[in-house]
Amino acid sequence: MSQSAPAANAVNAGPTRMSRTSIATVCLAGTFEEKMRAAAEAGFDGIEVFEPDLVASPLSPEQVRELAEELGLTLDLYQPFRDLEGVEEGVFQDNLRRLEGKFQLMQRLGVDLILLCSNVGTATSWEDEVAVDQLRRAADLAARYQIRIAYEALAWGRFVNTYEHAWSLVEQADRPNLGVCLDSFHILSRRGDVSGFRAIPGEKVFFVQMADAPIMLMDVLSWSRHHRNFPGEGGFDLVTFMRELYATGYTGPISLEVFSDVYRQTESVRTAREAMRSLQWLDDARAGEAPAHPTGWDFAEVRAAEPADLAEVLTQLGFADHGRHRTKDVHLFSAGHARVVTNDRTEAPLEHAGGSVIASIGLQVPDPRTTADHARSLHYPKAWRANRADEMVLRGVQAPDGTEVFLAPTSAAAPQWVAEYGRNDGDRVTGAAAPRDAGAGTEAAGVVAGDGLILGIDHVNLAQPWQWFEEGVLFYRSLFGLEAQVSNDVPSPQGLVRSEVMRTPDGAVRVPLNLIPHGLDPGRSSTTRTVTGQIDHDELRLKAAYPQHVAFLASDAVEVARRARARGLRMLPVPSNYYEDLAARFALDEAFLAELRENDVMYDRDEGGEFLHFYTRTVGTVFFEVVERRDGYEGYGAGSAPVRLAAQYDLDRQ
Amino acid sequence: MSQSAPAANAVNAGPTRMSRTSIATVCLAGTFEEKMRAAAEAGFDGIEVFEPDLVASPLSPEQVRELAEELGLTLDLYQPFRDLEGVEEGVFQDNLRRLEGKFQLMQRLGVDLILLCSNVGTATSWEDEVAVDQLRRAADLAARYQIRIAYEALAWGRFVNTYEHAWSLVEQADRPNLGVCLDSFHILSRRGDVSGFRAIPGEKVFFVQMADAPIMLMDVLSWSRHHRNFPGEGGFDLVTFMRELYATGYTGPISLEVFSDVYRQTESVRTAREAMRSLQWLDDARAGEAPAHPTGWDFAEVRAAEPADLAEVLTQLGFADHGRHRTKDVHLFSAGHARVVTNDRTEAPLEHAGGSVIASIGLQVPDPRTTADHARSLHYPKAWRANRADEMVLRGVQAPDGTEVFLAPTSAAAPQWVAEYGRNDGDRVTGAAAPRDAGAGTEAAGVVAGDGLILGIDHVNLAQPWQWFEEGVLFYRSLFGLEAQVSNDVPSPQGLVRSEVMRTPDGAVRVPLNLIPHGLDPGRSSTTRTVTGQIDHDELRLKAAYPQHVAFLASDAVEVARRARARGLRMLPVPSNYYEDLAARFALDEAFLAELRENDVMYDRDEGGEFLHFYTRTVGTVFFEVVERRDGYEGYGAGSAPVRLAAQYDLDRQ
Repeated sequence: MSQSAPAANAVNAGPTRMSRTSIATVCLAGTFEEKMRAAAEAGFDGIEVFEPDLVASPLSPEQVRELAEELGLTLDLYQPFRDLEGVEEGVFQDNLRRLEGKFQLMQRLGVDLILLCSNVGTATSWEDEVAVDQLRRAADLAARYQIRIAYEALAWGRFVNTYEHAWSLVEQADRPNLGVCLDSFHILSRRGDVSGFRAIPGEKVFFVQMADAPIMLMDVLSWSRHHRNFPGEGGFDLVTFMRELYATGYTGPISLEVFSDVYRQTESVRTAREAMRSLQWLDDARAGEAPAHPTGWDFAEVRAAEPADLAEVLTQLGFADHGRHRTKDVHLFSAGHARVVTNDRTEAPLEHAGGSVIASIGLQVPDPRTTADHARSLHYPKAWRANRADEMVLRGVQAPDGTEVFLAPTSAAAPQWVAEYGRNDGDRVTGAAAPRDAGAGTEAAGVVAGDGLILGIDHVNLAQPWQWFEEGVLFYRSLFGLEAQVSNDVPSPQGLVRSEVMRTPDGAVRVPLNLIPHGLDPGRSSTTRTVTGQIDHDELRLKAAYPQHVAFLASDAVEVARRARARGLRMLPVPSNYYEDLAARFALDEAFLAELRENDVMYDRDEGGEFLHFYTRTVGTVFFEVVERRDGYEGYGAGSAPVRLAAQYDLDRQ
Repeated sequence: MSQSAPAANAVNAGPTRMSRTSIATVCLAGTFEEKMRAAAEAGFDGIEVFEPDLVASPLSPEQVRELAEELGLTLDLYQPFRDLEGVEEGVFQDNLRRLEGKFQLMQRLGVDLILLCSNVGTATSWEDEVAVDQLRRAADLAARYQIRIAYEALAWGRFVNTYEHAWSLVEQADRPNLGVCLDSFHILSRRGDVSGFRAIPGEKVFFVQMADAPIMLMDVLSWSRHHRNFPGEGGFDLVTFMRELYATGYTGPISLEVFSDVYRQTESVRTAREAMRSLQWLDDARAGEAPAHPTGWDFAEVRAAEPADLAEVLTQLGFADHGRHRTKDVHLFSAGHARVVTNDRTEAPLEHAGGSVIASIGLQVPDPRTTADHARSLHYPKAWRANRADEMVLRGVQAPDGTEVFLAPTSAAAPQWVAEYGRNDGDRVTGAAAPRDAGAGTEAAGVVAGDGLILGIDHVNLAQPWQWFEEGVLFYRSLFGLEAQVSNDVPSPQGLVRSEVMRTPDGAVRVPLNLIPHGLDPGRSSTTRTVTGQIDHDELRLKAAYPQHVAFLASDAVEVARRARARGLRMLPVPSNYYEDLAARFALDEAFLAELRENDVMYDRDEGGEFLHFYTRTVGTVFFEVVERRDGYEGYGAGSAPVRLAAQYDLDRQ
């Protein structure tokens, strides 16, 4: 593509940082006043006044203006005004009357910019001349009120539905107070070519509205009204959009306009923070500042109602037991580079849900301090554990779902903190020195333990309450540079589970995020979640209601399964029908198929590689998986997840 | 249209009743065994074996066969087989191998019919000859196993995506064991013309799959996979489909194949019953047996934590107080033909939710016994109230959301049961003889009370838990012949509210159903709702969490408002901004606008008519509306609902 070159240049053409930030009140839940306060608290410079929010508000325009001043917010835009242009003269006269009423209202509010959407309903004229003339007359009326008009092409506009067309009309109308509004959704949903921005002088871009969205095939109106999300949460190429925008010389605010069924229901302050974070991510990405990818897994921590059961399963899988932590009520198990910490603290909500949770994960990053600082700048709350002076302190951050993510330096050797386990004779420590009860091939304490078959952690699958699923995507993208690999819907006996895998480009870290079906949602966690991001009991209860797991990478999954079974491991049983279907699908060698079947090992194949994997039974709601990837297989076992979910459901009910 | 005539004839051509019923296991939640048991319990004759359900099941094919026999279910179809035809010869050979494996499996199951979907992925040949040849060879292979193949055009099939095309290939292949499957979704989602069914001999229609769906604009694959629902719950013209189907001479089973995000999550026995009910409705409608419409409202019953507050509001609106029921802890209020019963029983879940509910509604029908019998034949649970021998007994039925619907004979006069109020001196009765404290113009007890301005009940707006919304649509359609009038999404400070108005053709009865946003769902009611349809505490709690209301029709809404305010009524305040927007929209007379504003009366206008209405503040979560319809206005006040929801939310938080 000849258009690809400008993007790199444009980086230099843009400002160092985004000049001003704004957010449309429609993005946030609550009353108009609550929306304004949330935007201010999250640090936005201004807001777009979404007319229906104002109409439903008991605040007079003057009170809104005062409140904005008090909060330090500018009122950047009044929106939307609809169906003005391209109409018959009689209709236009009435439209001008409507418009003038809005100008008067805007003067009371102190807003000098109005968003004019291209006509979707009443336009009758295909000809540019009619629209140009009417836009010009509207601009002349606006000029009398010192108001400017930003004309925006809606993706479903009747005659005007591309920004190129809108700009052409604005250019022809030729009025100083008439410009365009560029909206990423309206442009990218139609796969518009943003390189055309350069034809527009920056000073004629009066406003910019940003939204991301998952890539979906549906009518663009419904897509727009229900499924927009914040930059970095969806699938649009907003980075190129921003670079091309700045190449025009635009210096105005970058505003968010997100119509989302989810964010309409969630707490407005939290949403506003997420919104601000999305602009920070976008600005960093636009400026070419990508976060350093994690290089691997440090550990995964499981909190279970029955920690002894966890210990048994891990030992059966060939993990070495390093004993108890010298001061905390946690145990360490390791196999190869895979380290699992089990937390013996049981808490009321977990017991209530009968579940267990993956309480934290540890990621290795090139520089934990840099990542932690980045997390702070993105306003992700800190994760914190009590430490004694002689213990290694890991910086940590809370993910939106409440999982704590700790940051360790990249290291091929075992981390220092491993030495804190099993070594002391404190009053509550009952275990021997670590590693205890290790399988064959155990190496020196904490370096590479286990029987050598398990190499490390392959992925950690985290359940996401529906309210925070999209925040989870931005979290792993903005802080760790993980990208969405695949997204699909997995049928389970209790509903479809939407699954999206976030991963590093090299696959060193993979985090599948599973959206919990509404039917499994045990209650209103949205109203009780605290604004500061503290995990509350409801949150844990929600996560504990749904299975999560840690998957270990092995050199030979069948052999791990065989040995684990010999040690008494209860695998998740795989139905015989699965193997018959496998045979029909792949024409596998009989002996190989028998070996899989005998060990409850599942199988998949893609273009080049093969995938062998098995699951343990759940302990509470957490379970483990062992995977073997042959020849660069990159998936997660197509077709296995529904079988797994059905088997888990079945066992649950026995 | 020249095609419209056959439909009527076809009624005569069809069988008296549907011959056999079947359901695809994918319609239901749970394990394969649970699905089978649910289908049997709901009275289905057979099932379609959905392959992924079998693959994930621990039951062997032989065990499935035995279970089916034990349950009295036939296994009608094995499905789906994909991507067979229109491929290169090498690929086809592998496909035949796959197919033969399924034939062997089907023999073990004892299924003799397989569903073959038109190729969506691997087809490379546009030419019919290739597909015809391959279909023929597949049929010849099937014949060796005594198996028949039903070929179905998927709406998104690569080359074959209409039933006409599928039939043409089947006809050309010309094998006795090769026929077509007609699927209502695949045909109607593409707006197919079902009159073409007549070109197909009935004996070549091997299978029929029915699904309804809401009319949506989205890619047909996603629409199909997530949003199908049962006949009568959606917007397809399935009645004409059935009539045209029977015109072919088809005598096989009518099966349901519904992929639904909702029903995947709800209890399978309940879903199976709903599924069976949908076929009953469809068969009745196809045979021209429409239920009698209700002719009007008998009453609405509100259960509130604070019944005294309810009494106050009703009295302020001009309702006459008829006193307490002679044996029950309920009070009656009336104005015109509007009767409201307030229930003084407070119950724990209501108090917990801080709410109130519309516990029951009374509808006048031409013959209560016929409607009650119809309800029983549809397996809707009975609603029941304790009665003494000398009291009028109303037959009743429970709606899916738990609202009890009582059936009264059509009558212009006040019903007999009104006489049971306020007349006795029983120990717990404290009120005077009815009607007490009536406004001017009150007539004889219970006939037409009030001050003559309120004429009757206009509509009753019921909150629907998301799990039962679609069941609610079928309930009012199948039992009362109500049709969906409008469907839209109303923004509220706590999320979008999907609203669908069910009404009689003459507007005598209107029931807007509002789908409660997930964020307001206080918990897992799906798992605790009992199969028999008893309302449990969770259900009440859910309904009580969301505002519901009764709207009264008035001859002069402004006058009702004026008098009510004089009696001290606290109206729901309408923001000043609303009236300014109204002025901009409609250019209303200044004096008229001032009158509206002064009385918190809202306004709308459509083609011919005008709408004036106001809301009271909520008592718990129930409130009242007074509406005036001028010149046949048929709507509910576009734009009012968001303003109302915002005002209620605002008051709630004060």
